[in-house]
Amino acid sequence: MAQQHLDPTDPRSRHDGPVPTGDALAGYLRAQATEFLRALRLHRETGSGPNGSGGSAEAARALRRSARRISASLHSFQSLLDADWCETMRPELAWVSGTLAMEHAYTARLERLLAALHRLSGSTALPSQPAAPAAGGRAAATVPAPPRAAPRDAGPRTAPASATERGNLTVGAAKAGALLDRQLTLARTRAHSTALEALGSSRFHAVADKVAVLASEVPLTKTAGGTDLRPLARAAQDRLADAVTALPLLTAGNPYNAAALVHGLSPDTVPHPQDAPWHQVRLLLRLHRYAREAVSGPKGNAVVDLRLLSAGQALNRHRDASEAAAAAAQAARTPRIAPATAYALGVLHADQRHEVEAARFAFQQAWQKETVGAS
Amino acid sequence: MAQQHLDPTDPRSRHDGPVPTGDALAGYLRAQATEFLRALRLHRETGSGPNGSGGSAEAARALRRSARRISASLHSFQSLLDADWCETMRPELAWVSGTLAMEHAYTARLERLLAALHRLSGSTALPSQPAAPAAGGRAAATVPAPPRAAPRDAGPRTAPASATERGNLTVGAAKAGALLDRQLTLARTRAHSTALEALGSSRFHAVADKVAVLASEVPLTKTAGGTDLRPLARAAQDRLADAVTALPLLTAGNPYNAAALVHGLSPDTVPHPQDAPWHQVRLLLRLHRYAREAVSGPKGNAVVDLRLLSAGQALNRHRDASEAAAAAAQAARTPRIAPATAYALGVLHADQRHEVEAARFAFQQAWQKETVGAS
Repeated sequence: MAQQHLDPTDPRSRHDGPVPTGDALAGYLRAQATEFLRALRLHRETGSGPNGSGGSAEAARALRRSARRISASLHSFQSLLDADWCETMRPELAWVSGTLAMEHAYTARLERLLAALHRLSGSTALPSQPAAPAAGGRAAATVPAPPRAAPRDAGPRTAPASATERGNLTVGAAKAGALLDRQLTLARTRAHSTALEALGSSRFHAVADKVAVLASEVPLTKTAGGTDLRPLARAAQDRLADAVTALPLLTAGNPYNAAALVHGLSPDTVPHPQDAPWHQVRLLLRLHRYAREAVSGPKGNAVVDLRLLSAGQALNRHRDASEAAAAAAQAARTPRIAPATAYALGVLHADQRHEVEAARFAFQQAWQKETVGAS
Repeated sequence: MAQQHLDPTDPRSRHDGPVPTGDALAGYLRAQATEFLRALRLHRETGSGPNGSGGSAEAARALRRSARRISASLHSFQSLLDADWCETMRPELAWVSGTLAMEHAYTARLERLLAALHRLSGSTALPSQPAAPAAGGRAAATVPAPPRAAPRDAGPRTAPASATERGNLTVGAAKAGALLDRQLTLARTRAHSTALEALGSSRFHAVADKVAVLASEVPLTKTAGGTDLRPLARAAQDRLADAVTALPLLTAGNPYNAAALVHGLSPDTVPHPQDAPWHQVRLLLRLHRYAREAVSGPKGNAVVDLRLLSAGQALNRHRDASEAAAAAAQAARTPRIAPATAYALGVLHADQRHEVEAARFAFQQAWQKETVGAS
């Protein structure tokens, strides 16, 4: 099922240079730890206002980027690393990247929902770009923002809308936008404070100290230096392939299957349980990608598997749309809202659930390409 | 663009038997007029209670079926028929089929919306079939009800729900269902009375008298008997092909293009102006199909072009979903409804607009097959 073509994790594939062993892993971890420390220094230098400056946002992104990669390596190559150290580090790194991700997640969710409200209102005005990219973009930190497949003769769909550009919306859409703006801005502000507190905490300083040690000294097991990394990387790939096999890909590949909106009016299912296996595949795909990076070494890092990227982008979009739909449903439960507001939120919820379905279709298409391309 | 393969309207194609002329048209019109009179007799014998008995519904369907075919022949082969007679008959036949269509249209719309509410509530209960098929089914009179492309591993989507089976819906969905039930049942009852009044009116008796004359005596022009029908039928096909060319088929063939829900929250656009060219193609496709029937003669009538049928079914589904979406939006404007009701109607509206988009995709696929199959 999984691609074997030009796959650096495959021990049978041709590999330029020596067999990647625990020593290559150590090099990868040292590089990521160095990157973490560089990003932390940059973040402290650039300040930390709400939504951050451009530099601060970039720094937060880089922090999460390296934290995720170190954490993923601890997961995929656990048997080559000191067990106690792994067990201590992993939850701490997850806490760092999770805490830093929230502020941007709320910013992006609000942007997505306001852009959808504009589109649904048939707004022809093209909103300007948001003033400043927010700190620590979740999707953006992994891969470039997933572009929607652009219909060649349709109107614009991807243009983001800012909170102040709702003049040409209908009353219901405008009220829905204002409500979402209020709720998600409040959540974002709280996430910002939480992130600031976290970065100043002794818990974070302990993590930073451990990463500083990692930058020079990787706690490999005694035999790791001579152990081939590829079987472990291949195991990460197999876990991904198994999880993908369990997905309803036949449905997903059948356009307009309407599966994502089943339970759209069920109050017990926000967030939708049907989304969970897709979220899981998203995480496994990331682990697979980082394991490939570790195996490929500094050179291989530059080689990007575009098919893997498309699949990952589709799953990021799936996650974003799923969470945006849940936010619309949640906002509709606000007491004493006007029926027109509730109606607009219902349209918005359904629209984002169809985005979920569209993302599954896009993943299925990308994945199919991968398996077709396999030898 | 249009198919030329095995096409009876093409003068260049092989044709078993003599060239179809005005005499063949006269035969076709006599047969349709006879069918109209038979259906009328049946309708009078089977009674006319609300929603009709099975026989009455079948009779109303057959009445509209033949009225549409006579009317279409008057349009496509106008130059072969007495001009004054055509001008008098066409609006009267349109009035008959239009008036008889409304009751079933409301019944089908309510069924579609309640089935969607069930699906959106994730109802696992499979509702039973509606007690009796309603009189004069619009889509059903043309072609069998268009089945939704069934995803192989998805939940049930097509099962219809009756108004009394809303026990397991959420509060919002149940209230939305009750509201739609009230509004569409009222509209249906009014349509039923209107149809009964129409059938008893002197205007209708005048139409029936004219059709009785047509059953024995078709007012052909003097030269019609020797004129080849096929260039006129081909002109009907060309009008269809031209109208299809003007459709945004590139967008439609791109799954999840989200074009149908643009303006989904715009108050000025119910019904959606973007649907009009598709509705127009639906009518032109019907004219083309009936012109083929007239040309093919009694034998050719049995030969059904399945690709043409699929395309027509997709356009029926497009029309039904478009009108259902408008009904949901309209219901949401009812004063003093609860926010939960409005929210459910918003989800329902968006769901039906995505059905519109799905129908366009299905049409594009069916049409593409046709042109690929052309020699």
